[in-house]
Amino acid sequence: MTLEIETMTPRWNSQGLIPAVAQDATSGEVLMLAWMNEESLELTLTEGRAVYWSRSRRALWRKGETSGHIQQLVDIKLDCDGDTLLLKVEQTGAACHTGRYSCFFYDYSGGTWVAEDDTP
Amino acid sequence: MTLEIETMTPRWNSQGLIPAVAQDATSGEVLMLAWMNEESLELTLTEGRAVYWSRSRRALWRKGETSGHIQQLVDIKLDCDGDTLLLKVEQTGAACHTGRYSCFFYDYSGGTWVAEDDTP
Repeated sequence: MTLEIETMTPRWNSQGLIPAVAQDATSGEVLMLAWMNEESLELTLTEGRAVYWSRSRRALWRKGETSGHIQQLVDIKLDCDGDTLLLKVEQTGAACHTGRYSCFFYDYSGGTWVAEDDTP
Repeated sequence: MTLEIETMTPRWNSQGLIPAVAQDATSGEVLMLAWMNEESLELTLTEGRAVYWSRSRRALWRKGETSGHIQQLVDIKLDCDGDTLLLKVEQTGAACHTGRYSCFFYDYSGGTWVAEDDTP
């Protein structure tokens, strides 16, 4: 009798990156999407906190390194075809550089995307 | 006195696509990540259900068209830099082609990504 274990490996895109969705482990709120390369994923797993790859700066991005707004890793999952990661995190401070807790704050309204708290 | 409204527009990548995260509107469970082009986003907004762009088939992908597992749109948001969408949906059936409710089911365990329900 053999034990069949279904496994998967991350599938990096042509730039060697994979998208990573960060979700608040307690509330379930989706906080942001960022990208990881192989090194940043390894660092995330070994350090237990989110380390991304900044595509604009072309450098490792230890989330919260300057702001203190780190994301402590609670759980991490890979999806069915290995091309997306989901991180459940404990977010210190705010995920968004605007100071908002989540980066997803533009609502679609009348053909335009309008910031939630600026909606009249 | 002027009313300042902060707006954003979707930023399509070099392939004309934007990643879209689908989340269960009730439970908050993250279901999947797929991609949209401008047409599929417009169809999503007008039809009130998730329509993606299939990168493998290079065609519009009305989620659930063949399986019946449609995603009714409850809310949609764009993120702070306009390059990711978040859809809150009512999922009929299962989001994943494997029959699982969510596509995120591989856990990291001992250096390997192992399917949740195959873990001994």
